[in-house]
Formats: sequence, C-alpha cells, structure tokens
Amino acid sequence: MNTYVHPIRVRYEETDKMGIAYYANYFVWFEVARTEYFRSLGIRYSDLETQGYYLPVVEATCSYRKSVSYDDLMQIHTSIIEIGHTWICFSYEIMVEGKKCAQGKTKHVFVNDHMKPIAVPDVVKEKIVI
Amino acid sequence: MNTYVHPIRVRYEETDKMGIAYYANYFVWFEVARTEYFRSLGIRYSDLETQGYYLPVVEATCSYRKSVSYDDLMQIHTSIIEIGHTWICFSYEIMVEGKKCAQGKTKHVFVNDHMKPIAVPDVVKEKIVI
Amino acid sequence: MNTYVHPIRVRYEETDKMGIAYYANYFVWFEVARTEYFRSLGIRYSDLETQGYYLPVVEATCSYRKSVSYDDLMQIHTSIIEIGHTWICFSYEIMVEGKKCAQGKTKHVFVNDHMKPIAVPDVVKEKIVI
Amino acid sequence: MNTYVHPIRVRYEETDKMGIAYYANYFVWFEVARTEYFRSLGIRYSDLETQGYYLPVVEATCSYRKSVSYDDLMQIHTSIIEIGHTWICFSYEIMVEGKKCAQGKTKHVFVNDHMKPIAVPDVVKEKIVI
Repeated sequence: MNTYVHPIRVRYEETDKMGIAYYANYFVWFEVARTEYFRSLGIRYSDLETQGYYLPVVEATCSYRKSVSYDDLMQIHTSIIEIGHTWICFSYEIMVEGKKCAQGKTKHVFVNDHMKPIAVPDVVKEKIVI
Repeated sequence: MNTYVHPIRVRYEETDKMGIAYYANYFVWFEVARTEYFRSLGIRYSDLETQGYYLPVVEATCSYRKSVSYDDLMQIHTSIIEIGHTWICFSYEIMVEGKKCAQGKTKHVFVNDHMKPIAVPDVVKEKIVI
Repeated sequence: MNTYVHPIRVRYEETDKMGIAYYANYFVWFEVARTEYFRSLGIRYSDLETQGYYLPVVEATCSYRKSVSYDDLMQIHTSIIEIGHTWICFSYEIMVEGKKCAQGKTKHVFVNDHMKPIAVPDVVKEKIVI
Repeated sequence: MNTYVHPIRVRYEETDKMGIAYYANYFVWFEVARTEYFRSLGIRYSDLETQGYYLPVVEATCSYRKSVSYDDLMQIHTSIIEIGHTWICFSYEIMVEGKKCAQGKTKHVFVNDHMKPIAVPDVVKEKIVI
C-alpha cells in the first residue's frame, strides 16, 4: 500500500469553544490530503474537473482518538485502499508528534458533469498503486 | 424512537465549485440538529458545558445519497439510537422535499473539563427517550 | 431606509478556542441575511444565478463591538444603503438581546457568467427601497 | 515596513458555487498569515494565549480585486502597519502568480482572559518592526 504524508497545521478558525479542533474539519483535512496525494502521483484534481471528471463523496467516516489543538502540526497519511469500476476508497490517519489522533475513510464515485457515474479515468487508474 | 425534525437552509458558503453542498458541512448540520433536539427535550447544551459536561465526538459517519444545493430547505431528522454508561449515539437523516439525501451517525462520550469520561448526567438520561 | 431583520443562532462550529464566535463567520451571517432580505423582496438569489446574474463581493468590512457566543440568538438587521449602475451596497447590524454587537458593510458588483460587470437587473432595481 | 510572505493553497472547501473562493475565507487566510508572521518573529501565538494574552479582532476589511480559485497557490504578504498602547493593525495582500488579488486590514486589541484591554505585551513590542 502506497501512503502519502502531507503536513497541515491546525488553524485558529478550526478550533471551537472546547479549545480543540472541531470534528467536521477533519473531513476538510482529508480532502486537502487526497488532493496532495493525487498531486504526488502527477494528477492535478483541478485538471480532472477541467476534463469533465468529478469525484463526489458517497461515504465518509472518522474515528476520533485524541484531540488535536490549535497550531498542532499534523501529518496526514493517505492511502487508496480499494478501487472499483466507478469508485475509489481512501483511508487517512492523522498523526501529531508520532501519535495517532484520528483515522478515517472516504468513498468517492467518478461522475461526469451531469453527475452520472462513469468508469475511473485511465489517467487515474494507471497511476494508482494499492 | 423519538425523532426531532429541525429545518436548516443551505448557505451559499456551504456550497463548493461542484455547485452542491460540500461534504464536511453535513457534520455541521448534524451538530445544529442535535443541539436543537436537546433543546426540544428541555436541555440547553450550553448549560451542560457551564456545568462542566462536554460531549466530544468519537465517531462520525455519513452516507451521501443525493446532493443538496444552495437555498435548499433541509429537514434534519435526529434520533438518539443508543446510550451507554458514558456515551450516546445519534442518528440523522437529511430530507429535502420528502426525499432522503443523506444519513449519518455520531457517537459522543461525556467528559469533564479535564477530558476524562464520566457517566451520562442524570439530567440528560431522564429526558431521553430511545 | 428599509431594514429587514433575520434571526441566526450561533453554531458550535462557529466558535473558536477563545470561547466566542470567530470573526470571519460574521461575513457568512451577512450573506445569509442578504439572501433573506432579497427573499423578503420577492427575489430568490438562486433564481438570479439561474438567469445568469452573479453578485460577487468587492469590498467587505466589519466592526466588532461585543463578542457573540455559542447559542446566542442574533438578529441581523440588513439594509441596502446605496445602489449604482452596476453595484449595490448592503449594511448590517448584529444585535443580541437588544445590544449591538457588530456592524458591517459589503459592496457587490453584478456580473454575467463571464464575470463581466453588468447593469443592476431591473427585477432587482424595481423592488429595492433605499 | 517589514513584510512576511506565507504561501497558502486554496482548498476545495473554500470555493463556492460561483466556482471561486468564498469571500469570508480571505479573513481565515489573514489569520493564518498573521500567525506565521508572528512565528517568523519568534512569537508563538498559542504561547501568548497560554500566558493569558488574547488578541480579538475589532475591525476587519477586505477589498477583492481578482478572484482566486481552487488549488491556486497564494502568497499572503503581511505587515504590521500601526501599533498603539493596547492595539495593533495588520495589513495583508493576497498575490497569485505576481498579481494582486485582494488586500485587507485587521485591527486587534490585546485583552486579558477577562476580555479587558491591556497594554501590548513587551515580548510583542520589542520584536515588531514597523
């Protein structure tokens, strides 16, 4: 399994009155991490969209183990764990100073600009290592 | 099972360049919906915090079935589906014009202000109907 | 001057670790308030977009006088204070329990779907009372 | 005037259905940029808070000149332009590929943990170059 690690620092805006990062933001970080993972494979996600391929999320899940705080420098570990005819699954781990703080998964379907499911584009398939 | 329905209108800010609501925002709506569910039971979540009870999320999941768009008036259906000694599980359905667009769950642990798990407060337990 | 008042409750997500609402969210609330102001005039902003009119912001400002907190029920007072050939200016006041907490302004230019400035559409002009 | 430049890439979450970055996010980027500016001076903003100094915003403004888009790599230029007994003003310019896309200002007051204004801490004053 090929894993890509991308650093993200927790923004003040991402905290809440409990003093820690708000739970929905983890899914934003997952999105940033998969964009960067694609970039590391030579795929610019914005190019895919220009070519008429979109990648909406159909399932998303996260387990929160240890809270992350303002200014923490997280390392987001991203892998592609499964790939089907029209869909793709990513997994993520959020690490801070070597400790796992959260893990999650997202499942995405490739669609065209009419939101109809389509086969995973070759440009993606040939570059992905599971 | 007791279900509470709360309306939320999709904000422009909550859309993304795909033209639909961004996936992480569903978890924000879940949070608003459970706050209002608590309020409907006579529990102000902010009072719980004043009393030293916090309710961080330990697991969150969402299945996206049909996209929601700017200005859609959603109805969020919220239920409590399980309750343990220190934790509580909510389920949610997002409906637009009678169609189910998404469903999700969150699991929360009650903690004190040192983030140590504690028993579900009586004030919550006695008001919850599963 | 015609003023429209719209209530918004502060979401947990909108707070930060200082325990109060994060400053950028005021601009999100301004957007919700102007959408509802338009709706009160019989204009659905999403219809404008369907017709090819967009209304990007060119200037935005906010003065913060008194912090707002989680679960506060704000009243957002919105007015249109100036209108030009291609642009429109809104002003906003955020009140909580009768006290002014913030005030702001936004200036917008009407553009077509190629982002070129165009005259304020008649459908808007004829309904606005300054 | 001392200027610090910090890169931020536009996230998918930060776009809206107009296809460009949503206007309130510029203020989030300003916050990230001033945190990094402080860090470049040897000041960790989170340390200030640990020491009981907070820096809420009292005024914020932004002029939007040219839209920024998903995946754009912005350079945020941050300067401190004025400093008073209890307050401090930052200015920001957002550049993409050498073109100015937006400029803004924020004014902040130093307060203690009871939200009472206090003098700019020496640790900040002695490190700032205007």
